[in-house]
Amino acid sequence: MAREEPLTVADVARLAEARLPKELWDYVAGGSGAETTLAANRAALDAVAVLPRVLGGAEAPNPTTRLLGSPAAVPLAVAPMAYQRLLHPDGELATAEAAAVAGVPYVVSTLSSVTVEDIAKTGATTWFQLYWLRSRGLVEALVARAEDAGCEALVVTVDVPIMGRRPRDVRNSFVLPDDVIAAHLDDGALSRAHDAVAGESAIAAHTAAAFAPAVRWADIGWLRNRTSLPLVLKGILDPRDAALAVESGVDAVVVSNHGGRQLDGAAPSVLALPAVAEAVAGRADVYLDSGVRAGTDILRALASGADGVFVGRPVLYGLAVDGVRGAGHVLTLLAAEFRDAMTLAGCADVRAARALSTVRL
Amino acid sequence: MAREEPLTVADVARLAEARLPKELWDYVAGGSGAETTLAANRAALDAVAVLPRVLGGAEAPNPTTRLLGSPAAVPLAVAPMAYQRLLHPDGELATAEAAAVAGVPYVVSTLSSVTVEDIAKTGATTWFQLYWLRSRGLVEALVARAEDAGCEALVVTVDVPIMGRRPRDVRNSFVLPDDVIAAHLDDGALSRAHDAVAGESAIAAHTAAAFAPAVRWADIGWLRNRTSLPLVLKGILDPRDAALAVESGVDAVVVSNHGGRQLDGAAPSVLALPAVAEAVAGRADVYLDSGVRAGTDILRALASGADGVFVGRPVLYGLAVDGVRGAGHVLTLLAAEFRDAMTLAGCADVRAARALSTVRL
Amino acid sequence: MAREEPLTVADVARLAEARLPKELWDYVAGGSGAETTLAANRAALDAVAVLPRVLGGAEAPNPTTRLLGSPAAVPLAVAPMAYQRLLHPDGELATAEAAAVAGVPYVVSTLSSVTVEDIAKTGATTWFQLYWLRSRGLVEALVARAEDAGCEALVVTVDVPIMGRRPRDVRNSFVLPDDVIAAHLDDGALSRAHDAVAGESAIAAHTAAAFAPAVRWADIGWLRNRTSLPLVLKGILDPRDAALAVESGVDAVVVSNHGGRQLDGAAPSVLALPAVAEAVAGRADVYLDSGVRAGTDILRALASGADGVFVGRPVLYGLAVDGVRGAGHVLTLLAAEFRDAMTLAGCADVRAARALSTVRL
Amino acid sequence: MAREEPLTVADVARLAEARLPKELWDYVAGGSGAETTLAANRAALDAVAVLPRVLGGAEAPNPTTRLLGSPAAVPLAVAPMAYQRLLHPDGELATAEAAAVAGVPYVVSTLSSVTVEDIAKTGATTWFQLYWLRSRGLVEALVARAEDAGCEALVVTVDVPIMGRRPRDVRNSFVLPDDVIAAHLDDGALSRAHDAVAGESAIAAHTAAAFAPAVRWADIGWLRNRTSLPLVLKGILDPRDAALAVESGVDAVVVSNHGGRQLDGAAPSVLALPAVAEAVAGRADVYLDSGVRAGTDILRALASGADGVFVGRPVLYGLAVDGVRGAGHVLTLLAAEFRDAMTLAGCADVRAARALSTVRL
Repeated sequence: MAREEPLTVADVARLAEARLPKELWDYVAGGSGAETTLAANRAALDAVAVLPRVLGGAEAPNPTTRLLGSPAAVPLAVAPMAYQRLLHPDGELATAEAAAVAGVPYVVSTLSSVTVEDIAKTGATTWFQLYWLRSRGLVEALVARAEDAGCEALVVTVDVPIMGRRPRDVRNSFVLPDDVIAAHLDDGALSRAHDAVAGESAIAAHTAAAFAPAVRWADIGWLRNRTSLPLVLKGILDPRDAALAVESGVDAVVVSNHGGRQLDGAAPSVLALPAVAEAVAGRADVYLDSGVRAGTDILRALASGADGVFVGRPVLYGLAVDGVRGAGHVLTLLAAEFRDAMTLAGCADVRAARALSTVRL
Repeated sequence: MAREEPLTVADVARLAEARLPKELWDYVAGGSGAETTLAANRAALDAVAVLPRVLGGAEAPNPTTRLLGSPAAVPLAVAPMAYQRLLHPDGELATAEAAAVAGVPYVVSTLSSVTVEDIAKTGATTWFQLYWLRSRGLVEALVARAEDAGCEALVVTVDVPIMGRRPRDVRNSFVLPDDVIAAHLDDGALSRAHDAVAGESAIAAHTAAAFAPAVRWADIGWLRNRTSLPLVLKGILDPRDAALAVESGVDAVVVSNHGGRQLDGAAPSVLALPAVAEAVAGRADVYLDSGVRAGTDILRALASGADGVFVGRPVLYGLAVDGVRGAGHVLTLLAAEFRDAMTLAGCADVRAARALSTVRL
Repeated sequence: MAREEPLTVADVARLAEARLPKELWDYVAGGSGAETTLAANRAALDAVAVLPRVLGGAEAPNPTTRLLGSPAAVPLAVAPMAYQRLLHPDGELATAEAAAVAGVPYVVSTLSSVTVEDIAKTGATTWFQLYWLRSRGLVEALVARAEDAGCEALVVTVDVPIMGRRPRDVRNSFVLPDDVIAAHLDDGALSRAHDAVAGESAIAAHTAAAFAPAVRWADIGWLRNRTSLPLVLKGILDPRDAALAVESGVDAVVVSNHGGRQLDGAAPSVLALPAVAEAVAGRADVYLDSGVRAGTDILRALASGADGVFVGRPVLYGLAVDGVRGAGHVLTLLAAEFRDAMTLAGCADVRAARALSTVRL
Repeated sequence: MAREEPLTVADVARLAEARLPKELWDYVAGGSGAETTLAANRAALDAVAVLPRVLGGAEAPNPTTRLLGSPAAVPLAVAPMAYQRLLHPDGELATAEAAAVAGVPYVVSTLSSVTVEDIAKTGATTWFQLYWLRSRGLVEALVARAEDAGCEALVVTVDVPIMGRRPRDVRNSFVLPDDVIAAHLDDGALSRAHDAVAGESAIAAHTAAAFAPAVRWADIGWLRNRTSLPLVLKGILDPRDAALAVESGVDAVVVSNHGGRQLDGAAPSVLALPAVAEAVAGRADVYLDSGVRAGTDILRALASGADGVFVGRPVLYGLAVDGVRGAGHVLTLLAAEFRDAMTLAGCADVRAARALSTVRL
């Protein structure tokens, strides 16, 4: 990525698609079902038109913010994503280092192919993402491990009671290569993600075996009592759930449809965002996930009620293209685009961006 | 359908199209007029975006329900469809057996190419669909025959005063082959569906000859008194008619535009559904028909006010591809997709699915 | 059109396009400017989705109505169209005879290439369309001539102060052939429509020379006093003008954008219709013009507030393909489609069609 | 452009694209980011459907108006555009002369490649556009120079704190040729626009160096006191800013997203226009900029609340094709189209056009 730098995330995505084996590209870029929600995420973001302000900006707008207690150079965190060594030998070490350099929180996946302890050595601000495993003891152990590793928040993913059926993976008979493992889980549970299952994705089968499909609000309450770390629920779309989250003592919700990978037919995040933000009413942070591909999308999200965004696939595209440099380039690009967007929208700081008005195309 | 199982109904449809003679494919897949309503059915369903709930689901959601008095493994019934032996020698025996295995009601068409008595032997829960024939005596005989055969409900199709003009059939000079007959009707009336009529579909000409074009609410009243079976009116789109149906003692209405085969320009069912459900106000069941192609569509329908859905063409596609195995595969697929959709939407049961919110894309 | 009868107006249009010289096809089928309004007319009609009624129809619905004082076999009149001998030697004689056979009013254009007296001999119910010529004496003479010829209404076209610029005609250097003349006008005024004008349509130049560009409401008042015939204003889109029309003693308004041939950017008729119908409030008839291509469009128009429709280009397409038989085929097709649509929508008569509800796609 | 005159601005654009080197076409025609706003400008204008009036027009509608104190033959001004000698050796002299002939105000860019004094000699009514330079002294000198040259208004562009990133220019490594300079600025500041900058547009780099990125309302206040010329703010989309502008003593606002060249994701001007017009409430003029390509667009803008429009790229397309004749042809075309649109919409004058109603497609 040295001389002919890609100018946009779309450029990076094209490079990644050209470089990756089809089954890996499909695994990363694809969605569930007919990919209706996957497409709707982008269409809905594109349809958010912002009314920029004028004559109230700053020479150098201040894009920094705090996401929970963690400082962020821009209102962006790297979303939790599994098995990143699929895309590059450095895997999570590369993306976390890129996040560290970019000054944004990095969310370590339960299914990380590198341990949280090794990731912590990159110096990134880490949050730990929890898939709720069938074994309560294993959950507790993961929480303790995250605390010990210095993670500054726990992100409970609540939209994966099972894995959404992703036809591309099934058609590709996608399985994990032997050398990519979920570094935080024991070998017994893991082995299943490496064997082909007729008519099914190996990863989906593994998920079904390892994850608890019926996490309840009471489990969130238990976790709230178990840890003093800030708690984030990722995968909220209904404002009634957002209100319940606040009442459960949660510190942030992530409005997400898992990038169109879980319930196909779920609402695009940005359409669900305003009602969620209204229900939360400032009592917790609200982040938008699913579909962010440019700095203007961060602005659109903030103008629609978010405190920040999670960015997923773009970071993986960068990782696939050039490891830490590629992932870093994507974060640099998004940060620069967002700063430019703030400037162009006349926003001196993140608070001003959140006060922008929008119209729907 | 053994080794390379189709993953979606769309896959099955492609296989069926490849296998069927064009005139049969067109007869099944086509619609009336400019096929505006046919296309709008899908577009409108795709535009229903659901807000899934979280942390309130169940490990194994319960997709069972009761449709009228009949138990259903999923809130789905096989829609009444004529002349199924056109698509496979086993015809209705195959689709009914598939319904029996799937545990969902099977609606026997007046124009079934297999008798209701033979269908009953499959063990399926059967409902009998009534086209209102010109002869009141014949109607009465059909009702008695359905009752005697153990049908558990009568489904009166009210949107076929005449058959909608379907240009594909006319262009194909579509006629029934000699060996496919309407097994419940006498030979005299039937013969007309097998002769070419210039500039017209033979089936449309037969319909005009056999069916009463001016069924009235009073006829429904007569039928209500004539039978103690639950009554369903299929083909309601206007909430004023839904209210009249309830006042006529009807037990369920099916919001349907006959799969885009009758009035071209009629509203997509799912756009008409909410007002119908509001007019019915729980006093009868409300089912959605026309356009259901995936388990997520069942979820969309329930979230829009339906108690269940009718599925038509997909079952015929499966039948065409592999007889009872193909039809069964389609029902298994839809049931599995619906269970997954419930799980992903955090719904422990059908009642929870009906409480989901939606936004329109 | 004997053996391979076209099944739809779209079929007839394709046949006409194949048969006509490009410049004639363009003249008939084209619109003004970027043809935005031309396309929007169809899109807006397609987006009108009807909620059919059930169980209240009739075996043979009654599609007859009265348009002003004139009986009509269906709520349809043949729109005024100039110079029909361009398309077939029989010109207006053929289309009027087709209207006579179909039992619908025929509107004779001021720019008819056949005289109103000759047209009257076809037995058609005729209305006479007035372009307001620069010479008041000529207007008065046309009115008297129409009265003497037995015309039953006067249709004043109010949306042609000048002719909309139609790029296709200009690019084609379209001029009238020598043998097609405006039979009601004197030779002097006519000659100009047959000479090429650099960078302009010859017909547009002729219009500018012959027509009064500033007709006023006072002129309508003068005409109201001058004749006892029913008066129709064609080309109303704004409800304020509809109200003024009623106050001027007009008997009907035609909601029209001249088939997308005048102001490009004007609203599609069917979007303007409901507000016009509301403003008129039953004090005059309201007809829809511009975009009607099928019987379902007539139903859509009635359900949106119209008492009837004007049909233009389809009749010319039929004329071009097969003279009186072709034009007749189109009217037969539209009438049959409308009867079918009424039946399918459960409408025993035109009043019932006007009581249908619609939703917008 | 003599014999085969282009009929529409789209024709002129095609000719310009064929004639210009790709990098110049891209510089003129392109937009920022993903060009979402660029495309939305046109889509939003196309979706404004006008309800024309009838019987209230004039034989020769009066399209003249006053824009601020300046008379205008049509409610149109030539937008400020930089470096016009890129497109034709005559540059601004040609476009200003075309504006003089057309009788519309011409806005001289701060980055004009011809001096305001030379432009003034064309006889055009000139307004001077101010980019707020880092040096207050330079701003003051520009204002004085504009006043001395007889400019009748100052147009402060407020939507360029920085230049929007335009991927086409970056990919083309676009730099100004040596012989095209910003004639009002000193050589030191200018030189930077002629050197390639890795991964950046040379013009963007120059903008960053020369322009003040943080102009404030207080600066507008200072300018208001500094000059007695009417003040225009160009680049307002939010009605709150429109209200602030009025309170700052501004005489007009231009609703603009800079032709889709600044914040990608900004609202299309015509969607923002009605709320801005409502906020201004007649206390200042309101002009629409961004996307105007035809006379009907001027009508759409007026019907949506504007007092006039700015036209940019079309004039450059004409300039590129044939210098002063090409630019003049475009303005003649737009004026003729607007007069025709007024006539067709029944508008005797500009006030009547502003009273038209619209519906959204």
